[in-house]
Amino acid sequence: MSKQAAEPAPRIVNFPRGTAETLGEPVENLVRIGVVGCGYWGPKLVRNFSKASGAEVAAVADLNPLQLQRISQDYPSLAVTTDYRTLIDDDRIEAIAIASPVATHFSLTRDVLRAGKHVLVEKPLATSVREAEELIELADRNNCLLMVDHTYLFTGAVEKMRELVANGELGNVLYFDSTRINLGLFQHDVNVVWDLAPHDLSILLYVLDKKPVAVSALAVAHAGTQMENLAYITLVFDDDTLAHFHVNWLAPRKIRQIIIGGERKMLVFDDMESNEKIKVYDKGISVEQGDRQAVYQSLVHYRVGDMWAPRLDPTEALLKECRHFTQCIRENKQPVSDGLLALEVVRLLEAASESIRRRGELIRVV
Amino acid sequence: MSKQAAEPAPRIVNFPRGTAETLGEPVENLVRIGVVGCGYWGPKLVRNFSKASGAEVAAVADLNPLQLQRISQDYPSLAVTTDYRTLIDDDRIEAIAIASPVATHFSLTRDVLRAGKHVLVEKPLATSVREAEELIELADRNNCLLMVDHTYLFTGAVEKMRELVANGELGNVLYFDSTRINLGLFQHDVNVVWDLAPHDLSILLYVLDKKPVAVSALAVAHAGTQMENLAYITLVFDDDTLAHFHVNWLAPRKIRQIIIGGERKMLVFDDMESNEKIKVYDKGISVEQGDRQAVYQSLVHYRVGDMWAPRLDPTEALLKECRHFTQCIRENKQPVSDGLLALEVVRLLEAASESIRRRGELIRVV
Amino acid sequence: MSKQAAEPAPRIVNFPRGTAETLGEPVENLVRIGVVGCGYWGPKLVRNFSKASGAEVAAVADLNPLQLQRISQDYPSLAVTTDYRTLIDDDRIEAIAIASPVATHFSLTRDVLRAGKHVLVEKPLATSVREAEELIELADRNNCLLMVDHTYLFTGAVEKMRELVANGELGNVLYFDSTRINLGLFQHDVNVVWDLAPHDLSILLYVLDKKPVAVSALAVAHAGTQMENLAYITLVFDDDTLAHFHVNWLAPRKIRQIIIGGERKMLVFDDMESNEKIKVYDKGISVEQGDRQAVYQSLVHYRVGDMWAPRLDPTEALLKECRHFTQCIRENKQPVSDGLLALEVVRLLEAASESIRRRGELIRVV
Amino acid sequence: MSKQAAEPAPRIVNFPRGTAETLGEPVENLVRIGVVGCGYWGPKLVRNFSKASGAEVAAVADLNPLQLQRISQDYPSLAVTTDYRTLIDDDRIEAIAIASPVATHFSLTRDVLRAGKHVLVEKPLATSVREAEELIELADRNNCLLMVDHTYLFTGAVEKMRELVANGELGNVLYFDSTRINLGLFQHDVNVVWDLAPHDLSILLYVLDKKPVAVSALAVAHAGTQMENLAYITLVFDDDTLAHFHVNWLAPRKIRQIIIGGERKMLVFDDMESNEKIKVYDKGISVEQGDRQAVYQSLVHYRVGDMWAPRLDPTEALLKECRHFTQCIRENKQPVSDGLLALEVVRLLEAASESIRRRGELIRVV
Repeated sequence: MSKQAAEPAPRIVNFPRGTAETLGEPVENLVRIGVVGCGYWGPKLVRNFSKASGAEVAAVADLNPLQLQRISQDYPSLAVTTDYRTLIDDDRIEAIAIASPVATHFSLTRDVLRAGKHVLVEKPLATSVREAEELIELADRNNCLLMVDHTYLFTGAVEKMRELVANGELGNVLYFDSTRINLGLFQHDVNVVWDLAPHDLSILLYVLDKKPVAVSALAVAHAGTQMENLAYITLVFDDDTLAHFHVNWLAPRKIRQIIIGGERKMLVFDDMESNEKIKVYDKGISVEQGDRQAVYQSLVHYRVGDMWAPRLDPTEALLKECRHFTQCIRENKQPVSDGLLALEVVRLLEAASESIRRRGELIRVV
Repeated sequence: MSKQAAEPAPRIVNFPRGTAETLGEPVENLVRIGVVGCGYWGPKLVRNFSKASGAEVAAVADLNPLQLQRISQDYPSLAVTTDYRTLIDDDRIEAIAIASPVATHFSLTRDVLRAGKHVLVEKPLATSVREAEELIELADRNNCLLMVDHTYLFTGAVEKMRELVANGELGNVLYFDSTRINLGLFQHDVNVVWDLAPHDLSILLYVLDKKPVAVSALAVAHAGTQMENLAYITLVFDDDTLAHFHVNWLAPRKIRQIIIGGERKMLVFDDMESNEKIKVYDKGISVEQGDRQAVYQSLVHYRVGDMWAPRLDPTEALLKECRHFTQCIRENKQPVSDGLLALEVVRLLEAASESIRRRGELIRVV
Repeated sequence: MSKQAAEPAPRIVNFPRGTAETLGEPVENLVRIGVVGCGYWGPKLVRNFSKASGAEVAAVADLNPLQLQRISQDYPSLAVTTDYRTLIDDDRIEAIAIASPVATHFSLTRDVLRAGKHVLVEKPLATSVREAEELIELADRNNCLLMVDHTYLFTGAVEKMRELVANGELGNVLYFDSTRINLGLFQHDVNVVWDLAPHDLSILLYVLDKKPVAVSALAVAHAGTQMENLAYITLVFDDDTLAHFHVNWLAPRKIRQIIIGGERKMLVFDDMESNEKIKVYDKGISVEQGDRQAVYQSLVHYRVGDMWAPRLDPTEALLKECRHFTQCIRENKQPVSDGLLALEVVRLLEAASESIRRRGELIRVV
Repeated sequence: MSKQAAEPAPRIVNFPRGTAETLGEPVENLVRIGVVGCGYWGPKLVRNFSKASGAEVAAVADLNPLQLQRISQDYPSLAVTTDYRTLIDDDRIEAIAIASPVATHFSLTRDVLRAGKHVLVEKPLATSVREAEELIELADRNNCLLMVDHTYLFTGAVEKMRELVANGELGNVLYFDSTRINLGLFQHDVNVVWDLAPHDLSILLYVLDKKPVAVSALAVAHAGTQMENLAYITLVFDDDTLAHFHVNWLAPRKIRQIIIGGERKMLVFDDMESNEKIKVYDKGISVEQGDRQAVYQSLVHYRVGDMWAPRLDPTEALLKECRHFTQCIRENKQPVSDGLLALEVVRLLEAASESIRRRGELIRVV
């Protein structure tokens, strides 16, 4: 389309352009949103907020004029600017979505909250617990919504996992094992832990009903890069639960897999499957405690039953998240991925970094 | 974006809108294209022609105003009309892409060619050999390009298969076996043979260097529908080659698989794999002919070697196709998926239909 | 072990050799079995009859002394002979299991039945309907059990498929699609149809509650061999059911897959899966018949629900079959894979061969 | 066969029993072997030593008469005993294979070596570094072969991995990631680390040309069992290599996967694949070091090429291992899985246990 921009519109138009109202969507009380950052993720936010009823994207800011030019070609009526403060200062903009480099999350979010606007900020919320806590406190004080873009929490698969744990289908969770590896983009501002692990940590916190108490991690930076590209993180709980995360930018095959072992059932979430992403296995063991003998004696019984792959909500996660943000603003509700959950993610990332520095030493987080 | 259409553009715009030139793309001599039909496939054509340097979409026609409204929201500067003749009559439009129901392909394409415009029409070209031949003749007479949208021919996988056959890597092809099944959209205007088989028939004709001589097919329509939703088609060659096609709208799992057995090697094309779609197996047999004995005696030797998955061009097939259409117009070249290949596809479809009516009887096509 | 045969047994034995009784298995009334043919399948019969309580293998016959030598080394107490008539003439042998080349099935089985012994013969029962009928008649007259070694019928997967059809879980079966391909042994006495299709035809007849009425088939022999190595067989029913079989000795990958499409649910049986061989999909369509309009109008509704992989009986099929043979003899019961089912298999194979000769012409079987 | 043991051999035998010689195998200079332990693994040793030319199994010892009875039924000419010392004291037995519980490996192996016999002992060699060192020293002093049954080292897959590393195909190895999980047998004498990790540790040591310097591990025992059933082990090297092991008896799905990331290429070994167990990916990154700027600046280039699955030697690993043991005895060679490699495995297991006790603390092994 771009290439006709300089020319007058073709004269053959004989159909009156539609307006949103004619498509049957309510436009009253729209949440007008500004998007800061228009690289990889920003345009996805623009697209999904545009589709979400209840919201509209008013303007986009990015330091790079070329990015603005690209988004303008797709959305010509969108206002664009290289100065994000223009968005913050615009009274007609009620909320800001931030999709900028991690290092800028804290200061941008702080600026938005100080201006009394609601904010949706990409994960991770900040680069330290101290910063994250300051933002939560600031949001509270200014009565602003602080939501963090942990998109996975809005997938049908994660919703189903949470449901299966919450309704007792799996029984008490014994372990959570996650693998998130591929030949991925080597980031220049964060290592693989801060880039990939927020996904799995947020899933863990959302799905499980208990919190880790300590973190051990080991990581390496290969091939002369400055940032760790491979890490193993283990979380310890105060019972015998164990959680483990393998994140890797340098893997030959893309694997996105979570295994949850429960006392009653176990599940595998394989995000690379196009169908049947979640498989629930009616498998497990029970241990019989013999007491007639002096020596402790246990007898393990195995149970192997059916496998079951529940149907999942296929709605695009980011669209659901954009709607949720809008609803939470209008209905004054606490979002699923609020500052407190995001703070816990940052706390675990910070502890993992500390453990990596101390070569695997267990770092307490409570 | 749509919802702000009725409002004035936000005042915060401080960045001059880009034109195509500033992005470095040449705009001289653009092929201006009209798209007829804006349901499922039309918007994809609009998107890809917009991305293809050398082309621009000038206008879109569809009988349904709602479809036009939708495309307008995504491409506000695009002219739209409910009357496709407006496009045909517009001197500034040089070529038309047709993405309308199958039954209309013939008459629309004929109208376009009669107006002296180039045409890219969705597969199948027409609903009978007679119609297809008329269109080819008409294109010839009017010096128009007639290209048919057999998109698969532009995928990296099919290009690689053609290359592997052409360079002798597989040796003489012994069989071609295709499965294209899923719980698919039951079409109301065509049966599963005319809906799905054109994909695989065009691949066969493009990849193999020999042509089938006869067709046998059996099909059924289930559950009270009027259109066959399951069919098996077998093609016979004048040597001992066999080709077979399983097309099915009522399958529990999506399978998109082609197996090519060659005398030297064999390959499997699995389109559901995200990576390694093509696997080449260094496997086969050789038969030793005993001659010392009166009775014919053969000894089969098996060969099992490495497997190899060549890297494939990841470019979106439709984008490559749109570029190809544009280039063929500008450079006056014959397209890969020209009328003659499309005619052969229609000839096989027609013969398959005849065989289905005659309950599997072998119908000659040469 | 063989290599110590020439030497005296080591003197260190201090444990009295066990007899079957001490292991708790009843030995009363054992069915004493002779096995004819000791190539690929015969030793498996020996092993499984040896494991099956209620039976014991008394002797083995094979024309090839080397085969006998091999089985003797594994089972030193087994009597062996190059003359199968020795087994038939032995009064202590009550039943004969035949694992010889297909061409000999008829005459060997006839000899066994004439001697008044029960018989378990490898599939296919015979090479023609006429022969199969003669064997059934002979078995009836002599009050002998005639069971055919359609081993698949005793797998947990096929039992589950039969159950799912019988209890209405799938609803009315619309189609049955089977693929049985790999780089297989090119047989010298039978083509791929007579070699592989008996498996799938027996499964079809056992699982479905309706019978095909006609057969169409096409096949080719490649690479100078005399026997067809690739065939496509389609079965037509008197309703709109269709069954299809792809058998192939020259495929790069081993595929063992059956899809059954039912009106209520559909299933996939993938025998290459180590777990979850059967997957039941709660998927389907329903068609709403519009009646307000003059033209016939149908509306298709799609249903996509959970997937479910039932646990299957993991017992080795051949062991279950050997037990079943023994039980049917002792309890005078009709076996699951009796002569009549095997006759239907032969009838379909014969019709397929006729159709291949007539290049796909539909051959009636009722 | 067992059930006829009490009866006289059938009189119909008319074929003279073969001896090993007639089958063309040399029997001169056979290594006569005694097998101690006849539970799960012992019978496999018996079967494979029986098949290996150059060896014969003379006798088997097990404390459990039932196990001896079972093996006698399969191998009636085999001497059996409940007292393993009978085997050690027998002059005609040259070598002993030990397949007993882990806790007994040390004392049994010591007894065998003291008697001057060669030994093949199941992994792990011993339960402590001290014990392992004592056994190595004892074997040296008595000129006995000490080989440890790290069976994986004899698989075609591991041989290929070693070759790909040794010939530089992968380039410098950056990481080794192993997952060995399933719903496995909960052992009563060892935890999952000592049960499963020896497999992967021996593969690591055999495939890589560098040794780990420290170990960190975390593990848990679930469901009231006394033994850890889930563990994560990380090995640190003195360069930036990392190795990681996930072993788990309580997993819903069987995974046997090793990923090796090299500077030039990467591979995945998936032991659950029936074909193509090893896939070599021509993928990787290269980092360009910018030097014109004051700040360190790196540019990552990605390379994505073909995938290749080399053909692997399909011979059963245990058979190759039994032959190797025999050859090493006859030719006085050092075996692949000698005491020193096994000692390193034990050293890593011991360090992992220490790290588990210290909650992930990094334990040095050099």
